[in-house]
Amino acid sequence: MRDLAANPQLCSVNTATLGFQAPIRDVIDAVARAGFGGIAPWRREVEGGHVKAIARHIRDAGLSVSGYCRSTYIPATTTAEFDANVSANKRAIADAATLGAACFVMVVGGLPKGSKDIEAARAQVAEASALLVEHGRSLGVRIGLEPLHPVYAADRSCLTLLSEALTICEAIEGKVDDPWLGTVIDVYHLWWDPNLRLDIEWAGKTKRIFGFHVCDWLVPTNDVLNDRGMMGDGVIDVPMIRGLVESGGYSGPVEVEIFSAENWWKKPMSETLQVCRERLASAT
Amino acid sequence: MRDLAANPQLCSVNTATLGFQAPIRDVIDAVARAGFGGIAPWRREVEGGHVKAIARHIRDAGLSVSGYCRSTYIPATTTAEFDANVSANKRAIADAATLGAACFVMVVGGLPKGSKDIEAARAQVAEASALLVEHGRSLGVRIGLEPLHPVYAADRSCLTLLSEALTICEAIEGKVDDPWLGTVIDVYHLWWDPNLRLDIEWAGKTKRIFGFHVCDWLVPTNDVLNDRGMMGDGVIDVPMIRGLVESGGYSGPVEVEIFSAENWWKKPMSETLQVCRERLASAT
Repeated sequence: MRDLAANPQLCSVNTATLGFQAPIRDVIDAVARAGFGGIAPWRREVEGGHVKAIARHIRDAGLSVSGYCRSTYIPATTTAEFDANVSANKRAIADAATLGAACFVMVVGGLPKGSKDIEAARAQVAEASALLVEHGRSLGVRIGLEPLHPVYAADRSCLTLLSEALTICEAIEGKVDDPWLGTVIDVYHLWWDPNLRLDIEWAGKTKRIFGFHVCDWLVPTNDVLNDRGMMGDGVIDVPMIRGLVESGGYSGPVEVEIFSAENWWKKPMSETLQVCRERLASAT
Repeated sequence: MRDLAANPQLCSVNTATLGFQAPIRDVIDAVARAGFGGIAPWRREVEGGHVKAIARHIRDAGLSVSGYCRSTYIPATTTAEFDANVSANKRAIADAATLGAACFVMVVGGLPKGSKDIEAARAQVAEASALLVEHGRSLGVRIGLEPLHPVYAADRSCLTLLSEALTICEAIEGKVDDPWLGTVIDVYHLWWDPNLRLDIEWAGKTKRIFGFHVCDWLVPTNDVLNDRGMMGDGVIDVPMIRGLVESGGYSGPVEVEIFSAENWWKKPMSETLQVCRERLASAT
């Protein structure tokens, strides 16, 4: 296992962890000051701003961009809406290129309003992924499908299992040496999966691990969206999963992504960042 | 698909749906009056009472017992605790025999306190299942492993996927014509699974569907434990899943099980039962 304490370039933080308390420039500076080597910004912090200037600021701070969050949800009721969703993602992928992001993170969306047809939603996701990976390749941006915990299947991600994401990747791009369509593995979403070892091995062998996110599953969890825990505070064996991911050949940074409305988001950024760095070293 | 409106013997209700408002005798009478043909009682209503008298009351009311809920959680920190959990389940299985239950429903439990080793918890579940199916066979009670939604993996059920349950069944009992170890399929827990079609087919072919539970997934869900919906009020395509289960050869009753602290549990039993019967006919 790689030594995260000794290698700040392997430590990244997703800005959602900090609760969007400050403008992106201040967030970038705080992340760099805390000794991280990477950052994963959100579109809400970037779009409408001067994307090139933000990209330059990140570079000047010595940070890499471990991912750009996240896609507009795909599944739609009408073709026009589907097309608009794809177009919005194409624009975001162009920004991901400007930022030099390691990948564009796809949180694919759940059921369209009024629908009970999850298979149809999944078919739309596959169709959009095929379009977006073409666009990404043309701009030099890899597309990372992030399977989300099944608790979000209805409203955030009809894509749930890592095997499901890999099946889509292989159906679209086949088995290739240098894939542009891959997956983002988040311990929160996948820790429970009885096929996790096998599926991470599959993802590794096919070079389709584009990102690795960590946090923890608290017991009890008061809110399945915004009560995620700091590594070490919950029940996920994060080091075990990191071991699998790294054995699979993943060489990118470990990104801390914690949605925590009632705890970490209420703390000063500097404090949260310090604890993140400590826990990357001691509990990840 | 079978006609649930015309066949009350195919309509069962799990007493949890009624919020445990009344003594079991009154619940039995209300269920029979509402035109159900089956009931699934809980141990809290049965243990400490006169089990034979309750069994007789159910029979006299013309009801079958579609399942007996539910197992003491299995995974334990110590061997003594594990043994105690198995013993508690053996006693409950004896009561299931007295009740003439179609199966003893196993909700297997999550991680033991302080543990992060879900694989070890699963190994304990497999070990206990082997012991309990022997006991069940000797008493004429089938054991139904109920995979729960992965949102409960930490604290209620390390058993999550239907495929996982079937793998345990086959490892213990092999492929047999008349299995005593099988599964209980609940739409709430499994609706999102991309392998659902395949896995229900597998369960059907191996005659391992011992029970079928229905409710619905509400959007939004305010509480993942106790905010389940009435069939038709959420996003699950319940008729589609019932079709798969019945195509798989399942011939037992459809059991309504709704945990709903803020809605259905607050209504009079008679009202909830009436709506359950209507929705079994119109939205299941």
